[in-house]
Amino acid sequence: MLSRKATSDSHGQDSFYFLGWEAYVKNPYDRLKNPAGIVQMGLAENQLSVHLLESWLAKNSDALMLKTNGESVFRELALFQDYHGFPPLKNELVKLLARIRGNKVKFDPNKLVLTAGATAANETMIFCLADPGEAFLLPTPYYPGFDRDLKWRTEVEIVPITCSSSNGFRITMSALEEAYRQAQRLQLKVKGVFMTNPSNPLGTTMTREELNYIITFAAEKRIHIISDEIYSATVFDSPSSFISILEAVMDRNLDKTDLWNRIHVVYSISKDLGMPGFRVGCIYSNNQTVVSAATKMSSFELVSSQTQFLISKILSDMKFTRKYMKENQKRIKKRKEMLVSGLKLAGVRCLKSNAGLFCWVDMRHLLVSNTFEAEKNLWEKIIFEVGLNISPGSSFHCSEPGWFRICFANMTEETLQVAIRRTKVFVQSISSNSQQRRSSIIGRWVSKLSAYDHEPHR
Amino acid sequence: MLSRKATSDSHGQDSFYFLGWEAYVKNPYDRLKNPAGIVQMGLAENQLSVHLLESWLAKNSDALMLKTNGESVFRELALFQDYHGFPPLKNELVKLLARIRGNKVKFDPNKLVLTAGATAANETMIFCLADPGEAFLLPTPYYPGFDRDLKWRTEVEIVPITCSSSNGFRITMSALEEAYRQAQRLQLKVKGVFMTNPSNPLGTTMTREELNYIITFAAEKRIHIISDEIYSATVFDSPSSFISILEAVMDRNLDKTDLWNRIHVVYSISKDLGMPGFRVGCIYSNNQTVVSAATKMSSFELVSSQTQFLISKILSDMKFTRKYMKENQKRIKKRKEMLVSGLKLAGVRCLKSNAGLFCWVDMRHLLVSNTFEAEKNLWEKIIFEVGLNISPGSSFHCSEPGWFRICFANMTEETLQVAIRRTKVFVQSISSNSQQRRSSIIGRWVSKLSAYDHEPHR
Repeated sequence: MLSRKATSDSHGQDSFYFLGWEAYVKNPYDRLKNPAGIVQMGLAENQLSVHLLESWLAKNSDALMLKTNGESVFRELALFQDYHGFPPLKNELVKLLARIRGNKVKFDPNKLVLTAGATAANETMIFCLADPGEAFLLPTPYYPGFDRDLKWRTEVEIVPITCSSSNGFRITMSALEEAYRQAQRLQLKVKGVFMTNPSNPLGTTMTREELNYIITFAAEKRIHIISDEIYSATVFDSPSSFISILEAVMDRNLDKTDLWNRIHVVYSISKDLGMPGFRVGCIYSNNQTVVSAATKMSSFELVSSQTQFLISKILSDMKFTRKYMKENQKRIKKRKEMLVSGLKLAGVRCLKSNAGLFCWVDMRHLLVSNTFEAEKNLWEKIIFEVGLNISPGSSFHCSEPGWFRICFANMTEETLQVAIRRTKVFVQSISSNSQQRRSSIIGRWVSKLSAYDHEPHR
Repeated sequence: MLSRKATSDSHGQDSFYFLGWEAYVKNPYDRLKNPAGIVQMGLAENQLSVHLLESWLAKNSDALMLKTNGESVFRELALFQDYHGFPPLKNELVKLLARIRGNKVKFDPNKLVLTAGATAANETMIFCLADPGEAFLLPTPYYPGFDRDLKWRTEVEIVPITCSSSNGFRITMSALEEAYRQAQRLQLKVKGVFMTNPSNPLGTTMTREELNYIITFAAEKRIHIISDEIYSATVFDSPSSFISILEAVMDRNLDKTDLWNRIHVVYSISKDLGMPGFRVGCIYSNNQTVVSAATKMSSFELVSSQTQFLISKILSDMKFTRKYMKENQKRIKKRKEMLVSGLKLAGVRCLKSNAGLFCWVDMRHLLVSNTFEAEKNLWEKIIFEVGLNISPGSSFHCSEPGWFRICFANMTEETLQVAIRRTKVFVQSISSNSQQRRSSIIGRWVSKLSAYDHEPHR
């Protein structure tokens, strides 16, 4: 009597990624109350700089009190439901998008559609660009939520662009072409490439070379590019190596061609500004038909006007947001290095990263065999015996068993140290059990060091 | 290169209902700045009691300041994104739902799913209950937005249950059966009846008899009932004649049968509490699979945690919400009577109503012929010559030309009087042009008076 969507598992929420959360919720670590509980390392949440927002709000209470120049605008906001969005917020968001991109790209508020978070923005983009049974190509590993966000209600298919550890999970032209051929074999019409840049779960920005492969590919095949750039302000190398798809296309002088109308960016303040609860996301598209359709669709995913007002006030203090982002990047970098160096001492390596709220961690040497079954067994051990909810690569559709995403920004430093200590003890216990196996693995490391983050103390 | 959804008109936003808004936006009435402009009477917005909310907030600033017992909970709220929703809000919402229904129905917060407004709630319900190409039956006239909300992205069809002025647009068993047969002729599988109670645009509550027809029909055909009850606290007769579908099913002792699992209610604070900008809606379902799927879908339509907090605080002051609803109903009734009596003096009758923020107005005698073409011509005259944006029945899929929905709660009393004066002048100008035609129409009135609201001064 119900729909297929309601009764099938196509929402993808039965993956280990979500199951790990459930296990955590039943037994959450607390230093005092439940010191043997599970540490939540499966949540890409940013708690590192929320104190800066708190200080700002203490000095700018009008933003919370819904006042402008001392006058309440509660009445206007309570009634405001124009799906074109609150103009001050849209103006501030395009300024923020430009600033994060080093002002190399000009943004127009008329090309921006507000949505209740990037989750809604991504689904809306798929609804606008593809019909049921058509396909988008996604580089693997990719965020587990995309099976829900891009496929579930739209009935659009995802075909993986298979990336591998051999080149640090970089996208290659042959991987793009192979994904396209695979879609053809499945008789799926390819409508575009969907990517996260910086990548979730890799924590890396795309190189100019990768972007150019995708651009050439999309131009040739006459397909779309959706670039989910929700981690763009977490990039912590300096100068920032983040290149937006918009900038990359402009640099190729393709912004006057029809490709430009097939470039779409998704953004949100959830990760970069650490406010996922407030549900502020957006679509930025060069295609007016998409902007118009997405605006109508935004009826289903409007941002509370109370929150539109608050966020527009915070963003309008450019001095503050600049300070916030700088400090935030510094803190993310420090955290990431703490995790990387801690894991290194435990004999566990991370993919070299420069962004995000997580590391992509290589535990292949801890598998009893090179299979996803072994990965699952290891994951179960880690969550239930070691007490760490980390997310296995299989839930990110990684093609190679043994990789895990570990989040580091949703906890205190103390808790992170607890997690690192637990990992060390665990790895030692495995090592002493399989000394011989381990020594063969060390050899494998040496030849691949360049792809790893081996300078944790920078 | 785009989807059918993005490029077709299936969003239904080309109807006169939306076109009227566009005309209004280009030339909005303002007593001082644009006294010849168009008065917006196409917007079912409630501005009548917002001052009560303002007074409450002035005394309870912690609700805006995101404080509990003087302590800021900003940090928790900024990070709160659990799609199960903020428990205090869900608890308060179920209490509100029960109170509006005279505490005759018990509500369980575990059966409630929060959504960003009723728009999202309704779409989510359809995604949960029907597959593309299946159908829901809707009594006509119905809210124009439903073509977008129920059909556009879900690809589910709407088959009208045709109601007519002959019995005041009441639902009959034969109309239900005829709609079902029509769906069968179209080879559409019927998954349920979707209704608004109180009705938008009629401004009437469903009678026990109508509810029983629908219940019997749904039980027999083994289909769902979705009852959109977003106007339930606007019911202004006393004692309230509003009967929720939940109560009606319980009164038939069918709450222990499988029908109970096919009863779903949609609610929102947008109309009843006059806060559409804050995007707080919900689904209440007796079906655990639906609750579970809708909760996952609510990822696309989460309510800002800032707003969840604020609304939970407002609703927790039960004394205030009781006062608000009482005062609000009094004001709606007064406004409605002002419109009805004003129009009556202009020779224009309204369907007898007891709820909503609008009247369903009979202008059949002003048509030059009994056609939708004539209705369209009259609408154009009224919007562009008279300067009133009222919504023609055709945009509500009304089966008879000449009915219009006129909203009265989104403006000041003064503006409403301007609109009434304009209507009088317009009707007089038509009357003097067609004295003879008019006299024949008066005869028609006499026989139908009972269905009309002829006691405006109650």
